[in-house]
Amino acid sequence: MVDIIKEIEQLDWNKEPKGLYEPIAYTLASGGKRLRPTLAIIAAELIVNGGLLNGDAIEHAVPAALALEIFHNFTLLHDDVMDRAAVRRGRETVHVKWNDNTAILSGDQMLIEAYKQLAQVPADKLPQVLKWFNEMATAICEGQQYDVDFEHQNQVRIEDYMMMIEKKTSVLIANALRTGGYIAGANPAQQEALYQYGLHIGLAFQIQDDILDVYGDPKTFGKAIGGDICCNKKTILLLTAFEQADAESKAELLEWLMTTGRDAEKIEAVTAIYNRLGVREAVETIMEQHTALALAQLDRLPQNKACDKLRELAERLAVRKS
Amino acid sequence: MVDIIKEIEQLDWNKEPKGLYEPIAYTLASGGKRLRPTLAIIAAELIVNGGLLNGDAIEHAVPAALALEIFHNFTLLHDDVMDRAAVRRGRETVHVKWNDNTAILSGDQMLIEAYKQLAQVPADKLPQVLKWFNEMATAICEGQQYDVDFEHQNQVRIEDYMMMIEKKTSVLIANALRTGGYIAGANPAQQEALYQYGLHIGLAFQIQDDILDVYGDPKTFGKAIGGDICCNKKTILLLTAFEQADAESKAELLEWLMTTGRDAEKIEAVTAIYNRLGVREAVETIMEQHTALALAQLDRLPQNKACDKLRELAERLAVRKS
Repeated sequence: MVDIIKEIEQLDWNKEPKGLYEPIAYTLASGGKRLRPTLAIIAAELIVNGGLLNGDAIEHAVPAALALEIFHNFTLLHDDVMDRAAVRRGRETVHVKWNDNTAILSGDQMLIEAYKQLAQVPADKLPQVLKWFNEMATAICEGQQYDVDFEHQNQVRIEDYMMMIEKKTSVLIANALRTGGYIAGANPAQQEALYQYGLHIGLAFQIQDDILDVYGDPKTFGKAIGGDICCNKKTILLLTAFEQADAESKAELLEWLMTTGRDAEKIEAVTAIYNRLGVREAVETIMEQHTALALAQLDRLPQNKACDKLRELAERLAVRKS
Repeated sequence: MVDIIKEIEQLDWNKEPKGLYEPIAYTLASGGKRLRPTLAIIAAELIVNGGLLNGDAIEHAVPAALALEIFHNFTLLHDDVMDRAAVRRGRETVHVKWNDNTAILSGDQMLIEAYKQLAQVPADKLPQVLKWFNEMATAICEGQQYDVDFEHQNQVRIEDYMMMIEKKTSVLIANALRTGGYIAGANPAQQEALYQYGLHIGLAFQIQDDILDVYGDPKTFGKAIGGDICCNKKTILLLTAFEQADAESKAELLEWLMTTGRDAEKIEAVTAIYNRLGVREAVETIMEQHTALALAQLDRLPQNKACDKLRELAERLAVRKS
């Protein structure tokens, strides 16, 4: 039985020079959901328990699962520098606790550490796993760049936004599932089903994030409600509002976008416009469509306990509160 | 016949989003010596012309050579952010021409692009090439961290300095040679000879850099003479001076280290101390030892035109002026 959380905790960062490795240990010790490596292992279990291969195949997926978790944390580390974020998972970010240069260099080393894990993938599986990993990593950098570009862009279409969050969020989740399954012996149709499932739960997850930022329960959400509205973030809610708004509502929205320093009032007003335009319902429908598409992929996979876990995850995502 | 300079120029960076890829194109178009990919190809030629394999083996070394060049330029890009360097190879650095975030993100993507090239290495050679590449990349990050640590450290031993420049500079050159040779079919003894040759020319190269910064000809050196002295850089010259100095010279050196704003005077005075202590000769002896060690490795390799090129390189390094 693979305990991937324990595997992450047992990674050894007690190495010299400490200035390079301590920030890596700090970043990886800060918890988080461990969603990506967990999904990689569930996918491996799904394929193995589906009767195709023996249990060793799950162990073989461990290095790739670790690579994905290290990579994900690398992206957070560098994103926090770029966003000037001071807090992550309730702790000071690395560039605040140390400095920008440390965050850059230790982040670089984390990316290399991810590839060190990948180098442990069984040799016959390595070329494909490396190729997918590189494509995924590229998508995430591209997604990050589009996200930055969109901030300075007047008009962003909903389809552009969906492309951006697919690259920035979904591809990593999708690749975690596909890679775990592939190493455990999934056939091409199963690889594709795992990938598509991951893409769609990733999209549903990100859309739900946007919804919760406005409509979440302040007690369970974990951060302040309305943060996206305050900073004019082009979320799917805002883009949908612009798409659905008549001239008058559009003018009202634009005026609020140009308003600063009246945050509480702004949140209330923009939320009222969203409510009037039925934005929440429209966006929830899109989210539910992606959840349904994710669930449909599971029918193409072996029906076992691991598959049930993926089903529960998709269903739980749609109703989460934080 | 492989033209590796042309291969670098033909890499396609005309991709979206432009904000991510244009800084990569800019960085790779800025020239430089292309030393590392050239050495990888020479090593492959050396092994193939040594009669062990056919000419395809040289082509097979191209992706690894490109990976090394992209990786090297990635390190320069991130180093320039960390050092706040404004100019590189006569042009504005990326973080000046664009901004810090662009330099961070496009640098990350360059590191990933290096691994994309590696993924093209023939599958039977990939596990070893990837493992070596990861070890090299780690050494370079560690070397960079030691370099930063040494700045804030009162006492740095010459052996620590040598360890640092080995990691920061030599390992990349050594690995370029070993990897090119390995892909072309070098046996383990040849791989080791290529690696050791690279380590020693790398050390000689870096030591020569330190010497030229003080004793170079201003007309050919390309940058201002004495830059290292002005900023109290712990070069092998300064460390040797401290090691050789009596109490009086040591006190004089320390006083100059604490002096700011009198650069021309400081350069003249510190150089005079170096001259009095015979620092240049002592350091040149170390450099010549490494050149000799590099040359000795070549006797263990096939004697052909490619091997002659490596011999010339080692001999030329020792007398270079820029």
